[in-house]
Amino acid sequence: MTPSVRRSFVVAASLFTLAGAPLGAQGTPLASWNDGPTKRAIMTFVRATTDRSSAQYVAPDDRIATFDNDGTLWVEHPLYTQAVFALDRVGALAPQHPDWKTTEPFKSVLERDETAIAKFTEADWEKIVAATHSGMTVEAFNDIAADWLARATDKRFKRHYTELVYQPMLELLAYLRQNGYKTYIVTGGGQDFVRAFASRVYGVPREQVVGTASKTKFTIGESGKPELIKAPDILYVDDKTGKPEGIHLVIGRRPRAAFGNSDGDEEMLQWTQAGGGARLMLLVHHDDAQREYAYGPDTKVGTFSNELMDVATKGGWTVVSMKKDWRRIFPFDP
Amino acid sequence: MTPSVRRSFVVAASLFTLAGAPLGAQGTPLASWNDGPTKRAIMTFVRATTDRSSAQYVAPDDRIATFDNDGTLWVEHPLYTQAVFALDRVGALAPQHPDWKTTEPFKSVLERDETAIAKFTEADWEKIVAATHSGMTVEAFNDIAADWLARATDKRFKRHYTELVYQPMLELLAYLRQNGYKTYIVTGGGQDFVRAFASRVYGVPREQVVGTASKTKFTIGESGKPELIKAPDILYVDDKTGKPEGIHLVIGRRPRAAFGNSDGDEEMLQWTQAGGGARLMLLVHHDDAQREYAYGPDTKVGTFSNELMDVATKGGWTVVSMKKDWRRIFPFDP
Repeated sequence: MTPSVRRSFVVAASLFTLAGAPLGAQGTPLASWNDGPTKRAIMTFVRATTDRSSAQYVAPDDRIATFDNDGTLWVEHPLYTQAVFALDRVGALAPQHPDWKTTEPFKSVLERDETAIAKFTEADWEKIVAATHSGMTVEAFNDIAADWLARATDKRFKRHYTELVYQPMLELLAYLRQNGYKTYIVTGGGQDFVRAFASRVYGVPREQVVGTASKTKFTIGESGKPELIKAPDILYVDDKTGKPEGIHLVIGRRPRAAFGNSDGDEEMLQWTQAGGGARLMLLVHHDDAQREYAYGPDTKVGTFSNELMDVATKGGWTVVSMKKDWRRIFPFDP
Repeated sequence: MTPSVRRSFVVAASLFTLAGAPLGAQGTPLASWNDGPTKRAIMTFVRATTDRSSAQYVAPDDRIATFDNDGTLWVEHPLYTQAVFALDRVGALAPQHPDWKTTEPFKSVLERDETAIAKFTEADWEKIVAATHSGMTVEAFNDIAADWLARATDKRFKRHYTELVYQPMLELLAYLRQNGYKTYIVTGGGQDFVRAFASRVYGVPREQVVGTASKTKFTIGESGKPELIKAPDILYVDDKTGKPEGIHLVIGRRPRAAFGNSDGDEEMLQWTQAGGGARLMLLVHHDDAQREYAYGPDTKVGTFSNELMDVATKGGWTVVSMKKDWRRIFPFDP
């Protein structure tokens, strides 16, 4: 967990478009999943809920599957991608805010003081997010995020962040959709940030992204044109109890299947399971330091506590071992 | 605008299911619309945005149409249906609240004091809605609303409220969907109240209803089961500027077509139009006292002000005359 402020001067390269790949290429469903109880649990659930002769058959309208994003669909270590984006934006916006040179938490960001950044509190991060994610139209923010994602790269893998998505999960999204499931992202990250790439990368349209949302303000702009401006205030935080609450707000149905990887996903999976009947609750466990990362209770980024493991065991939830269950991690893996 | 508290003891009759009717029966699109400039404006817009050879062609993903509910899809006079529901619920819940006999605004409701009710302020209504729309699980509220809608009837038409929907608008919903448009309801009314009937009555699924939303609270219930409880606090009001804001929150795309009937819809239509290209902005004008109601600037329920008419004229918006443009008003009309 060594956060780093980086500025990418890489010229925007043509981007690897992932969303289509697993859909078209997939002769065998879940090809990057090793055979075993995990893959079997997924396929048994899908068959039970889509076979018309099954006692657990679910009508297409109620086939809702919700996916956490950070650590479930893409890499979240050493630091959430959106946090890296926010730190970069502090650098980009600094010329308009001369006071940041002497005001924390901006001062530490501009000085690239990684030790100080690693100690940032929730309140520090809220200030950074508010300063970098508001004051522009919703369309302008979308362009800023998309442009950054097209340029920035991860230090370890030397890849764009949108390439650091898990191939087995892309196949799982595709497999569920092929079976009539509507796939949603339900993320503690910013709804508008994830909307900027979810369609291209995951095949999930903008209206199927539920996330932490800031307020917006409808106003008549200088040109006399109506605009929606992103405000610094948070409307709701889509994490922990906020996940089932956000699901009710935007979807209005209880998921049949829910996928996560950390303590922030516990309530979403609990609420899913409480609906009764055939339900799939799955957690990705990061136990592969060689191919990706290994972490659990010992990190602030994507904590998978011992308590969560107990809840998963007692509830009969499926826990994915990246090491054992995934043949391939990334789409670019051989 | 004479609100009335009523209690229906009518045994739940099998309900007229409307959603399917306009889809199946519709040989000619918009059959209940008279020929003329209004119908032509709708059809021209749809052709321009769906014909691949058109310069104004819109990709299917961006075909978003948003409909106000009260006064646009169903009758809102003499009082919003949800307000009638709330007043009825005060009666039903009164035994659990002995203090309501002496506390306003509940006292006036229980005494069926129509003069007092007609003078209720926004704050009075907020108290009534908070008291009747919270404290139960989201599923329980859905059942309460659905059960009430199956029993309650309108005084003038002697019909269930869900029968008092506009046949031409049902056909418009169906016509847009047949042309690849995703139809959403964007209502100042309660999101959870409208979700209780939107699928059956309008063919609009729960996840495509955007409305005024209360907060919910995730909690572990007495049985040890996770529950989502409706809280009395409002998360956001989906009216006026709240409509484009709610659209961004839940849909994340700007509509191509927006339909309303009152001052509360102005900003939604403005924001739609500001997207440029082919857009359809349409307002229903209630000018048919004989078949339905006639009202404009002179009502508190669904006000269509002279200012709104000016904005519509200047913007080139389509204004529907119920009297001239609609051959039939209700599905049960001959």
